[in-house]
Amino acid sequence: MIKANENYLKLPGNYLFSEIDKRVAVWKNAHPEKASELISLGIGDVSRPLAPGVVAAMEKAVKEQGHKETFRGYRTDSGYEFLREAIIKNEFAPRGIHLDIDEIFISDGAKSDTGNMGDIFSDDCVVAVCDPVYTVYADANVMAGRAGTFDGKYWSRFINLPCTAENDFLPQIPDQVADLIYLCLPNNPTGSAATREQLKLWVDYALKNHSIIIMDAAYEAFITREDVPHSIYEIEGAKECAIECHSFSKMAGFTGTRCGFAVVPKELNIDGISVNHLWERRQTTKFNGVSYIVQRGAEAVYTKETKQSVAETIAYYMANAQKIRLALENLGLRVYGGIDCPFVWSETPKGMSSWDFFDQLIDEAQIIATPGAGFGPNGEGFVRFSAFGEAANVDVALHRMEAMQVFASK
Amino acid sequence: MIKANENYLKLPGNYLFSEIDKRVAVWKNAHPEKASELISLGIGDVSRPLAPGVVAAMEKAVKEQGHKETFRGYRTDSGYEFLREAIIKNEFAPRGIHLDIDEIFISDGAKSDTGNMGDIFSDDCVVAVCDPVYTVYADANVMAGRAGTFDGKYWSRFINLPCTAENDFLPQIPDQVADLIYLCLPNNPTGSAATREQLKLWVDYALKNHSIIIMDAAYEAFITREDVPHSIYEIEGAKECAIECHSFSKMAGFTGTRCGFAVVPKELNIDGISVNHLWERRQTTKFNGVSYIVQRGAEAVYTKETKQSVAETIAYYMANAQKIRLALENLGLRVYGGIDCPFVWSETPKGMSSWDFFDQLIDEAQIIATPGAGFGPNGEGFVRFSAFGEAANVDVALHRMEAMQVFASK
Repeated sequence: MIKANENYLKLPGNYLFSEIDKRVAVWKNAHPEKASELISLGIGDVSRPLAPGVVAAMEKAVKEQGHKETFRGYRTDSGYEFLREAIIKNEFAPRGIHLDIDEIFISDGAKSDTGNMGDIFSDDCVVAVCDPVYTVYADANVMAGRAGTFDGKYWSRFINLPCTAENDFLPQIPDQVADLIYLCLPNNPTGSAATREQLKLWVDYALKNHSIIIMDAAYEAFITREDVPHSIYEIEGAKECAIECHSFSKMAGFTGTRCGFAVVPKELNIDGISVNHLWERRQTTKFNGVSYIVQRGAEAVYTKETKQSVAETIAYYMANAQKIRLALENLGLRVYGGIDCPFVWSETPKGMSSWDFFDQLIDEAQIIATPGAGFGPNGEGFVRFSAFGEAANVDVALHRMEAMQVFASK
Repeated sequence: MIKANENYLKLPGNYLFSEIDKRVAVWKNAHPEKASELISLGIGDVSRPLAPGVVAAMEKAVKEQGHKETFRGYRTDSGYEFLREAIIKNEFAPRGIHLDIDEIFISDGAKSDTGNMGDIFSDDCVVAVCDPVYTVYADANVMAGRAGTFDGKYWSRFINLPCTAENDFLPQIPDQVADLIYLCLPNNPTGSAATREQLKLWVDYALKNHSIIIMDAAYEAFITREDVPHSIYEIEGAKECAIECHSFSKMAGFTGTRCGFAVVPKELNIDGISVNHLWERRQTTKFNGVSYIVQRGAEAVYTKETKQSVAETIAYYMANAQKIRLALENLGLRVYGGIDCPFVWSETPKGMSSWDFFDQLIDEAQIIATPGAGFGPNGEGFVRFSAFGEAANVDVALHRMEAMQVFASK
């Protein structure tokens, strides 16, 4: 008789964003007259459309797929050379990072890559995750059987890296040895970012302990401070200890178009076993590559015209972030992030729980935020606001928030 | 210190099609003057472009992504309702199969789904695979640690289902109990297909033993015989024991566009645990959904006009299959498949090994075929020809084959 993967049964509740979707649906059913007023500052979905150059490139690619002479079928599962070359030329070469084409693996996004990357490592390796954490890193490792038992707050086999106001929401080097370390910098959900010096501590730790860092760099394009590196490979030695996952989702509005990539350097070895080969093997067996059309769209992100357009959209979102920060500060809240990252991490008013404030935000102001507690115990007492909305909606949302009863005493 | 997933290290050689790609590249380097003459009847890639209706739908979707008002970002990881509804209405309802929308999971293809589906079951379940087999089912389970040790031919923990000329290349019910059974019908690589009666034996076996069948139905659209079912759910009880994976790749030319879907019925339970929920949890954690643009293209496959166009393309390929069958038979070879499936499975001439004939086909006739031995020990002495080429190329290839020395005595 077949059995289920028992690790799946350990997972508490639903995937956070599915849970939010369900709660919002329940609220909408109860308040159909107000449903159209909802403004989401919750899930990190963008609101600006694709750049004209990306649209034009995909229209051309779609047309090509309609003609025998230009039709493209199966190609390498790891992506077209044109896109991998464009990525190397635009993302890495200007920062002095040399990468070969076969060190870039095109994927449908950083969630898939960070979720699946654990497949190539042993089931018993010790995983370090931040608290709060983007739930995928933790959940994927629970599914793989690396978590141990859950005490309602923590998994017994994870090394938890507390990120709190005291450490600027940056994970600190642990006393124990972690084999696999998930970092997300600039950080989802807290909006924090590490300087070159802070990141170097992690690279040195990984090299010393023969650990591997999986760096989720999905928010790299939003960095504004000079001393915050855009790639972990700016740190010496990182190619020997780090995988880096990127996404076009936030950077270029690909949340519904789906494209990202993982960098797996050839210098990365486990006792002589090439991690690059392990990942190639995983992908060629369990993945079939990204749509040609989408890859052409991603390539177009790097044309001169589209780069300008992408930069403008990023500036637009970061102006939202700035507004959200200021408005929340004016309401007397302690606020973090929003400088190198489109997420603003705010304490809840009057020590309210994350989910209670989530409910109040919907009920009183028709705003969807993301409860910090959904990201881990240290997220309790915080909510995450995303800066990806329309500026006008952000304004409305902030006005509504100011009118909430909990802020009335201000 | 981190360790690799040791199961990956057990995998012998490369993924078959990567290996073929590499051999072809070596041959091209050695014979640059003949490289342009190569005709691939090897990897099952289609050659006809997308239908005009699919192109039009994707052009419209691309344009929508360029405007704020129509832009689509994140949506449910399991796919848009419009596509799931179209699938149910066109693929299942006409066959009397009732499915709910949340039993359909849109994906980037059947390779990903059949490769990843094992994730939700226990590591120690006993897997049955055909021999020969589409290598993904076997390799994915080797990676998951279900294979045991390899003796150069077989994995110690797999139940091997020999498919030979004696059983019309159809897997027979084994004496042992298999927990997880991978079937591909119509079959890749042998081109065989099971009748309703033959398939019922498997459903009954699975129900009796509490096994789950993963049915790869990627070639369903090519079925011509009346008594061959298009879905396993045409068999009573199948919803309680089977997952079915479909693909738009071969059916509608999506090999480079990437879309498929898995059907996971809500009736499918393991001791009260919903397999549908397990898969939903896997996908929402480790996958981020298929491009909106691609899903619009897949939806358009089911318009009246495109259905006609798709049917014509399928007929075009099946005419190729018929030609290949006849030509090989005329060369004195025993030939299978090509009736309900676009693959023709042929013995090699004069008892030659699969790879030797592969090499001769390239050297003497500049034809790429797929060596049967690459699919398992029972594939030795066979090669697979795909019918997805241009008709004119197929003609040229067959003429060249007739001129090969090994057939000179004919």
